[in-house]
Amino acid sequence: MELQQFAVVGMGRFGSSLAKELVRLGHQVLGIDKDEEVVADMTGMVTHAVVADATDEDVLRSLGIRNFDCAIVAIGDDIQTSILVSIQMKELGVKKVVAKALSDLHGRVLERLDVDRVIYPERDMGIRVAHQLVSPNLLDYIELSKEYTIAELSVPGCMQGMSLKELNPRARFGCSIVALNKPEGIIIAPSAEAVLDERDIMVMIGTNNQIEDFEESIMLKK
Amino acid sequence: MELQQFAVVGMGRFGSSLAKELVRLGHQVLGIDKDEEVVADMTGMVTHAVVADATDEDVLRSLGIRNFDCAIVAIGDDIQTSILVSIQMKELGVKKVVAKALSDLHGRVLERLDVDRVIYPERDMGIRVAHQLVSPNLLDYIELSKEYTIAELSVPGCMQGMSLKELNPRARFGCSIVALNKPEGIIIAPSAEAVLDERDIMVMIGTNNQIEDFEESIMLKK
Amino acid sequence: MELQQFAVVGMGRFGSSLAKELVRLGHQVLGIDKDEEVVADMTGMVTHAVVADATDEDVLRSLGIRNFDCAIVAIGDDIQTSILVSIQMKELGVKKVVAKALSDLHGRVLERLDVDRVIYPERDMGIRVAHQLVSPNLLDYIELSKEYTIAELSVPGCMQGMSLKELNPRARFGCSIVALNKPEGIIIAPSAEAVLDERDIMVMIGTNNQIEDFEESIMLKK
Amino acid sequence: MELQQFAVVGMGRFGSSLAKELVRLGHQVLGIDKDEEVVADMTGMVTHAVVADATDEDVLRSLGIRNFDCAIVAIGDDIQTSILVSIQMKELGVKKVVAKALSDLHGRVLERLDVDRVIYPERDMGIRVAHQLVSPNLLDYIELSKEYTIAELSVPGCMQGMSLKELNPRARFGCSIVALNKPEGIIIAPSAEAVLDERDIMVMIGTNNQIEDFEESIMLKK
Amino acid sequence: MELQQFAVVGMGRFGSSLAKELVRLGHQVLGIDKDEEVVADMTGMVTHAVVADATDEDVLRSLGIRNFDCAIVAIGDDIQTSILVSIQMKELGVKKVVAKALSDLHGRVLERLDVDRVIYPERDMGIRVAHQLVSPNLLDYIELSKEYTIAELSVPGCMQGMSLKELNPRARFGCSIVALNKPEGIIIAPSAEAVLDERDIMVMIGTNNQIEDFEESIMLKK
Amino acid sequence: MELQQFAVVGMGRFGSSLAKELVRLGHQVLGIDKDEEVVADMTGMVTHAVVADATDEDVLRSLGIRNFDCAIVAIGDDIQTSILVSIQMKELGVKKVVAKALSDLHGRVLERLDVDRVIYPERDMGIRVAHQLVSPNLLDYIELSKEYTIAELSVPGCMQGMSLKELNPRARFGCSIVALNKPEGIIIAPSAEAVLDERDIMVMIGTNNQIEDFEESIMLKK
Amino acid sequence: MELQQFAVVGMGRFGSSLAKELVRLGHQVLGIDKDEEVVADMTGMVTHAVVADATDEDVLRSLGIRNFDCAIVAIGDDIQTSILVSIQMKELGVKKVVAKALSDLHGRVLERLDVDRVIYPERDMGIRVAHQLVSPNLLDYIELSKEYTIAELSVPGCMQGMSLKELNPRARFGCSIVALNKPEGIIIAPSAEAVLDERDIMVMIGTNNQIEDFEESIMLKK
Amino acid sequence: MELQQFAVVGMGRFGSSLAKELVRLGHQVLGIDKDEEVVADMTGMVTHAVVADATDEDVLRSLGIRNFDCAIVAIGDDIQTSILVSIQMKELGVKKVVAKALSDLHGRVLERLDVDRVIYPERDMGIRVAHQLVSPNLLDYIELSKEYTIAELSVPGCMQGMSLKELNPRARFGCSIVALNKPEGIIIAPSAEAVLDERDIMVMIGTNNQIEDFEESIMLKK
Repeated sequence: MELQQFAVVGMGRFGSSLAKELVRLGHQVLGIDKDEEVVADMTGMVTHAVVADATDEDVLRSLGIRNFDCAIVAIGDDIQTSILVSIQMKELGVKKVVAKALSDLHGRVLERLDVDRVIYPERDMGIRVAHQLVSPNLLDYIELSKEYTIAELSVPGCMQGMSLKELNPRARFGCSIVALNKPEGIIIAPSAEAVLDERDIMVMIGTNNQIEDFEESIMLKK
Repeated sequence: MELQQFAVVGMGRFGSSLAKELVRLGHQVLGIDKDEEVVADMTGMVTHAVVADATDEDVLRSLGIRNFDCAIVAIGDDIQTSILVSIQMKELGVKKVVAKALSDLHGRVLERLDVDRVIYPERDMGIRVAHQLVSPNLLDYIELSKEYTIAELSVPGCMQGMSLKELNPRARFGCSIVALNKPEGIIIAPSAEAVLDERDIMVMIGTNNQIEDFEESIMLKK
Repeated sequence: MELQQFAVVGMGRFGSSLAKELVRLGHQVLGIDKDEEVVADMTGMVTHAVVADATDEDVLRSLGIRNFDCAIVAIGDDIQTSILVSIQMKELGVKKVVAKALSDLHGRVLERLDVDRVIYPERDMGIRVAHQLVSPNLLDYIELSKEYTIAELSVPGCMQGMSLKELNPRARFGCSIVALNKPEGIIIAPSAEAVLDERDIMVMIGTNNQIEDFEESIMLKK
Repeated sequence: MELQQFAVVGMGRFGSSLAKELVRLGHQVLGIDKDEEVVADMTGMVTHAVVADATDEDVLRSLGIRNFDCAIVAIGDDIQTSILVSIQMKELGVKKVVAKALSDLHGRVLERLDVDRVIYPERDMGIRVAHQLVSPNLLDYIELSKEYTIAELSVPGCMQGMSLKELNPRARFGCSIVALNKPEGIIIAPSAEAVLDERDIMVMIGTNNQIEDFEESIMLKK
Repeated sequence: MELQQFAVVGMGRFGSSLAKELVRLGHQVLGIDKDEEVVADMTGMVTHAVVADATDEDVLRSLGIRNFDCAIVAIGDDIQTSILVSIQMKELGVKKVVAKALSDLHGRVLERLDVDRVIYPERDMGIRVAHQLVSPNLLDYIELSKEYTIAELSVPGCMQGMSLKELNPRARFGCSIVALNKPEGIIIAPSAEAVLDERDIMVMIGTNNQIEDFEESIMLKK
Repeated sequence: MELQQFAVVGMGRFGSSLAKELVRLGHQVLGIDKDEEVVADMTGMVTHAVVADATDEDVLRSLGIRNFDCAIVAIGDDIQTSILVSIQMKELGVKKVVAKALSDLHGRVLERLDVDRVIYPERDMGIRVAHQLVSPNLLDYIELSKEYTIAELSVPGCMQGMSLKELNPRARFGCSIVALNKPEGIIIAPSAEAVLDERDIMVMIGTNNQIEDFEESIMLKK
Repeated sequence: MELQQFAVVGMGRFGSSLAKELVRLGHQVLGIDKDEEVVADMTGMVTHAVVADATDEDVLRSLGIRNFDCAIVAIGDDIQTSILVSIQMKELGVKKVVAKALSDLHGRVLERLDVDRVIYPERDMGIRVAHQLVSPNLLDYIELSKEYTIAELSVPGCMQGMSLKELNPRARFGCSIVALNKPEGIIIAPSAEAVLDERDIMVMIGTNNQIEDFEESIMLKK
Repeated sequence: MELQQFAVVGMGRFGSSLAKELVRLGHQVLGIDKDEEVVADMTGMVTHAVVADATDEDVLRSLGIRNFDCAIVAIGDDIQTSILVSIQMKELGVKKVVAKALSDLHGRVLERLDVDRVIYPERDMGIRVAHQLVSPNLLDYIELSKEYTIAELSVPGCMQGMSLKELNPRARFGCSIVALNKPEGIIIAPSAEAVLDERDIMVMIGTNNQIEDFEESIMLKK
């Protein structure tokens, strides 16, 4: 994979996690924060960490920001700074500017400033956790469309030893098991003879309603 | 689905998003915050919203917290309050207590207090966004195991009009396309004749390396 | 003149002066400030004054802001609020939005938000006062273009009793006296026979250099 | 023009704009502020910038303030400091002391202290902007007296191609066009044959009422 | 004695002591302070006590300040408020305005504002106490001129039983005893036969040097 | 006069004035304050000025406080520090400890701690100024006892040219003029032939009532 | 036991614990604190709880403090208030005044004010806990004199089944066991035949050295 | 006694007293506090004192905390820090962790974290002082069980010269005198002939009721 250069402004919980993962994925990350202590803590974890005021155009220029592939404005709690840094990043010609929004209104301002992507980490995570809380077997999910979802579900005790033929989710609920994650390895597109074990994890595709019905049938059995 | 009762303590960005999604999913939510204005904003969006000091045991009792199915301690920035509320929730006998951790150390304290699930929304979201930034075609993903991932990828321009037989990811990269999300509908376990269109979205399963190789081959073409 | 409706957000020194002048010119002004005391002071001086948080869309709606001819965002010292209020005014469909900028960067954000006019009162006034300080006879001026200026100059003692023919600014400096303000009345396009008096005020048009040369010749005489 | 020496105390938005314009006009400016960062920002933009407490007489003496032609007390938000600095400037024998007032009462104190000129930038700018908002064609204006005004007006679309004879403002409204600013150059005292173009700018002299009537007739046509 | 009306602004230690003494001397006092608690404490001790912002002209008018014989601006620690209140008192036409100065510079501003009397309580009291500390027998003194002083001195033990003839301060030091305060009553212009007792108090008039020499001769004896 | 050593703790308005006067009277003064800037300002005005925390016994010891003749605790606004410093001064064996009290209660605590003299500068000065305000001719006074006062009075215009025989205050009011301060010199025990002049100052002794009656008779004449 | 009346000023951790124990012992307690919330929490736990400023003599009078048997000044962190309240309690004639000292110096001031008993809870508790930490078998102790201590010690495992005759502490260490607390009851002055059990607690009297030697012999055995 | 190593985190009143006593008892103490001044004050009083943030695991490691026999978390007023430090101490493997709790809830959290001992110094001291206030002769006491107490009582005046036979507390109240502390030395298990003196101190063992009855009989006699 081609090595890319990222600048992350604001090294709070979200920004530092993002920065560390980018480094782990093999990319170069410049971390910027105005708090000396935060920067000291990040040194060694990102390619380069500097104490700087990212609202100051001269500072951004001297850091060569315009040559970065992507700048992420991950400022924690200060809408004004987030806006002022984002506009400077755009004006300096950074290829891609991603910014974290603290509220809908903040997000709308960022979009007007032609920020390439606006993210709402707490809001999105709140939604994701809500789904997991409601369905105890739901480990994770991807919304493919408004209707369709891929769900990663733990196999409940009541399905121990059942074959997919017996379970037959396609016939009963309309949704399909596209993969089975077993301790001994992943089975993609498992056959009808595959047998479920309590420690297995199923990957299902279906409409939201189909998967919900499937989950409910599990819970009623318990 | 069975209706459940949730109590959410702390109605910041994460807590309020979680609470609203739970309501949208058809459950009952009691929102608790010490800030009057926050509570006023949430009224009408959750089943019940109250101004209360959740560290006060008498307050929690009078709210009948012990009868809730699940309490989510989503306090924004105050580790002490998060800990004190979490222990009370456990002592009052709430069935399931979920708490948001602000740091590793905080998370370890919560685990010692037998909190049922500790979540790190900003950290997890940081990791998720890092993956999406690195792979421009990656829309979302689920880590099935340390090795295997399900990835939702947009079909790049260079694959326009290609059949799955031509693309043949299984042979070339080892990973499989388990579903195709086309404007006209989802195709689960698509056949080799299925033809890709730039507006389609593919769902792939494979090892991290296989999917990474696949993505890289796309990027090199561009 | 047709009566217009103005909303002024922020009733500091600039905003309140603007609001009072608009009222004096016969228009209707709604003054909005979050500070109760400020609003109390303005009551009676504007058509209507309310204590309100102008970043709250519901508040703006309930004030019927969309029906105003013009909203002036005259917020004193808070860039964030200025931006958030300005975008709301635009989104609500106010016909014309004027906003005061606190810095160049702030001004650039406002322009990106399609604010109709961005004003820099302190900066502009600083420039205007600089000119007056440098030329003691200069009372006021309008920059017609980068080159041409209309200047309002007091007649210095050294010109007492001189006729325009004697002074002959056109021949000597290239600039023209287009009006003479005498205690007994204004003379527009005064004839060469007109005689200057120390209490008169001249209105000149010329290039910046011509007027500067003229002023300098006065100062040297003193 | 003779080079003059100015001291500007307080380098906020108004003070720094004033200082920079004085430098641009070819004069020497000593900028004084108690904020180190502000002074660092101004270095290179004024002749000399120092961090100093201007209420301390010894400091002012050591800066040789008594030899300056003019001191401008442009302190932003602190009435007490403004008063204490102003009285010191007078007592030290500065030739001319100009001070910015934050309120009428503040202005009255400054006048009692024999400050040579008291200015109210925000108030004056508020009034100026009010006039421009009310008359969309009004670009700028000078109040010659309580009755007479010079107005710089953009030529509206409805006057495109009209000759001054046709328009005849003198006969219809009583006011005169003393200059026309056309893209190709300024015409002073334009003849009746001059033809208006939408991109032109007119300079009119007349009483407030005459000009107002003229503007209104334009607006009605639109 | 004719009853007078006083307004005291600022009821700190100095102001409240002054106000209470004026009341004790039979006059009417209106006490004004912006601190509610301070006003509550003074109620009953002055004729009338109000919570008010004395920088607000309307407030002063509504209190009828212009009809008072004298206003004392005894504001503790806020130079700006002291100045703004003092100028308003003068402008409202109060017959006599007395103001407490916190520093020399503050005092000079007050004098420029034509305040009738500027007092420096802490400075004056510091000087007075210094004199008493240096001369242990000195109880109090009045400086009649730069040279002459009246001193109230306790009679030291070494003079017990001495007659004025024996002591003979006029001959020996040049200063005179104009009164003797004895437990049984005051003796004005005591005769040479008067005998001193340790409990007596002498009132002397003389030059500073004479009295100092006299005091020193006492101390040496001890 | 014997040179004495004073330590002054707290160099505010009262403390610094006291310290400077002690130096002017020829004594040695050690000034102590915890504020660096205050100490810098006093350097050169007192014998020695140090930045120190006077509540720290070790600090006081190292300054050799026990050898001073007198310590004055002149702390401005902090009752606790005043008390803690005063008790240390006593315990260290300073010969004489004088402390400024901020309130009656504070004064009572200081007395219980055996402080040698408790002074109330603002309270005493308030009383003194009250007397002067009430009697416009009263320049200064000493209270000899509860009944008797020495008053320094300016001679009013109505007494111009009067001899003491004519005025005869002893017969008419019971009080005596013990000295006359004339531009040409002091007259002690002036004879009945002495003539008053408007620029003279009289020193009177009498009971409070006698002097008050005398003053009133002056005011009525005016 | 005779019922007594206590007033406790300051209801922090120490004060509230003291107050509750006094109530538990059958006495009447008036709790005073300036913090409303603290008082609300104590209501029902003490006889009477009031929000009041205990430095205000009028407040103390109106509470009838002079009739209380004992006032405890248990103010947490404010030396000044502690001193001012204590002196008032003494002056009002409370029979016994007990005050908590925050430091040695504070304690010395309280003693000078004739406070009946000065207590140092944190200091004393620190000493007590230190002893317990050092000797793991030491449960509690009383210092009878500088030399002699009563110690409550848990019986260590190594003494299980030993008779007092065998242990013979008097002969071996010089200290005596005056009581044995066994699950079945206390044995006072146990006989030599008494047998120790690991769950027993011994009460010993001896010099500090004797008991220390005894404890050490236990620890060595382990 | 074996030398032990203690680490004390938080050197406030409790922590510093504890640390100093441990040193006095011959042990080694490392004092840790984040306040530089506090550490400077403790230097020389403990074996080693360092300024450090004890919530930082790296800091604790570098101090070699894991090798200490006991860590005492004596943090004054910050529950969060107390919890975070305590969990780290446990995780680092310190043999024994003792922590001071500020409230019951705080104490419960500490217990869940497996802290070896939780202490409540202010609460315990409040209870102890309450007992001493109620019984004026009670000097100190140990609660042996819920029922039995050892009490150290001063001998009241009414028992002067009485022999233990006459007093006979065992027969009259059920409690025993196990020791008598006389100026000339301790008498353990005193005989019936022993005679009481007012300066003696008795050590009694009995049930709470027995000792209370005994004390009451004393008080009634007075």
